[in-house]
Amino acid sequence: MSEVDTSLPTQATGAAASFAALHSNPHPLKLYGAWFCPFVQRVWIVLAEKQIPHQYIDINPYHKSPEFLALNPRGLVPTLALTIPSSDGKDESQKVLYESTVLCEYLDEAYPGENPLLPKGDAPEEVYERARCRLWMDHVGSRIVPAFYRLLQCNGGDEEGMEDARKGLLSALKLLTKEMAPDGGPWFLGQRFGLVDVMMAPWAKRLWLIDHYKEGGVGIPGKGERGEDEEIWGRWERWFEAIDGRRSVRDTWSDEEEYVKAYKRYADDTTQSEVGQATRKGRMLP
Amino acid sequence: MSEVDTSLPTQATGAAASFAALHSNPHPLKLYGAWFCPFVQRVWIVLAEKQIPHQYIDINPYHKSPEFLALNPRGLVPTLALTIPSSDGKDESQKVLYESTVLCEYLDEAYPGENPLLPKGDAPEEVYERARCRLWMDHVGSRIVPAFYRLLQCNGGDEEGMEDARKGLLSALKLLTKEMAPDGGPWFLGQRFGLVDVMMAPWAKRLWLIDHYKEGGVGIPGKGERGEDEEIWGRWERWFEAIDGRRSVRDTWSDEEEYVKAYKRYADDTTQSEVGQATRKGRMLP
Repeated sequence: MSEVDTSLPTQATGAAASFAALHSNPHPLKLYGAWFCPFVQRVWIVLAEKQIPHQYIDINPYHKSPEFLALNPRGLVPTLALTIPSSDGKDESQKVLYESTVLCEYLDEAYPGENPLLPKGDAPEEVYERARCRLWMDHVGSRIVPAFYRLLQCNGGDEEGMEDARKGLLSALKLLTKEMAPDGGPWFLGQRFGLVDVMMAPWAKRLWLIDHYKEGGVGIPGKGERGEDEEIWGRWERWFEAIDGRRSVRDTWSDEEEYVKAYKRYADDTTQSEVGQATRKGRMLP
Repeated sequence: MSEVDTSLPTQATGAAASFAALHSNPHPLKLYGAWFCPFVQRVWIVLAEKQIPHQYIDINPYHKSPEFLALNPRGLVPTLALTIPSSDGKDESQKVLYESTVLCEYLDEAYPGENPLLPKGDAPEEVYERARCRLWMDHVGSRIVPAFYRLLQCNGGDEEGMEDARKGLLSALKLLTKEMAPDGGPWFLGQRFGLVDVMMAPWAKRLWLIDHYKEGGVGIPGKGERGEDEEIWGRWERWFEAIDGRRSVRDTWSDEEEYVKAYKRYADDTTQSEVGQATRKGRMLP
């Protein structure tokens, strides 16, 4: 991998550094993460929301330690290591899971608590509502996230490509926003913070990096310039302000200038990250 | 859309035609599908496995009817229309869901029956096993399926690209196979047929189309030519034979020559389907 990528700070800073330090003691539930990675932040947010005791281990995804690769030979970040008791309860075995959506849903089910992040229950409207949440979690992963990287990695000289990428991102954001509960609370489900919010939060928090690096930026129109989309973008803003103030999101956020440094490789389209390379080659995101 | 695509038969043939005819009467649970679409077949298999009463409506995805677009303005296939009772039980409302993975999991939860397709329960090993299934369902969708289209749409003249695409598909198939229960039954979970099997079945059933259209084919090595992979490919064959004989898979399968016609557009890379176009442009699959 290139020298550029390895110059990244390998540790969280700011609030995220404090949160990581609070969870640095050995614990059987371990999250292997990278401070700048939005897929990791999803899992981190769930751990913070549900106050799940755990150990956080910040690894450098460009220089994966042999210990980490022994645990997960595919080397994907985030990775969760956990122990489960054997069926006779006398022993326990270590297990490894990965893929951020799988991890978030796993943690929500393994640590249900009082406020599940996905609607629970077997009544028809609960089963339907759970499926509707999964549909929009999927939308974030399969439409919004790739559109984010497409625009961020766009060559500034290619105006047409840039406009096309921008349109794709804006229309995917609008589709999600239209599905949000219209009132009674800022979240996707209204008064209840949930997994659709978690899926989207890390990229919502990183949209300003596109404004920082790309002429024309994300292009969300300002108040009064939105025509028939006034209500949609107003709803988006209400949601985003709530996300921006959510404790679990703040606690897992590093110093902003570090993101500027980390995402320069994406903006220059020279990143060696797996997501960045997949976007460049026109592949599915890993 | 091009004339070529619209020349496709618009109705299922063979066993799938009989199964569709058995489910042609009006019913509040409706699957809108296209006979050749593997994403549709996933949902169809779940309906067949659980013997869920429903109405099947075969639509032409290249000529979507206004009625269908009124129901799902995004026009995605498969789409499921369902009714759920209002909270006071006096009324019911129509809902629409889509995305094949979401639909399969929804049907499994809404019609639990005696044999759930995803492990149920709240015990630690059940919650873990459910997450592990979701991880490999995700692997099928995010790694195997795109690799399938990449190889199928490869330009025969581009030997290097073809070899790269073939390697990608084989290695993704091997990763999945390594996770299958080693003995005690042919399925991913051993004796229990489940959603990982469902996710993979439609593309497993279509692998021969790559052999048909591309020199060198999929390239799964034959017995005795597998070196250290003997066990893995043996396990894959055992799984595939079981899938090939599974009633729900047979019941949702049309005449083979119709697939040859339908997939010619993919093999020539002239398809106007959303999946095909996304693969050509190097985008995430829709």
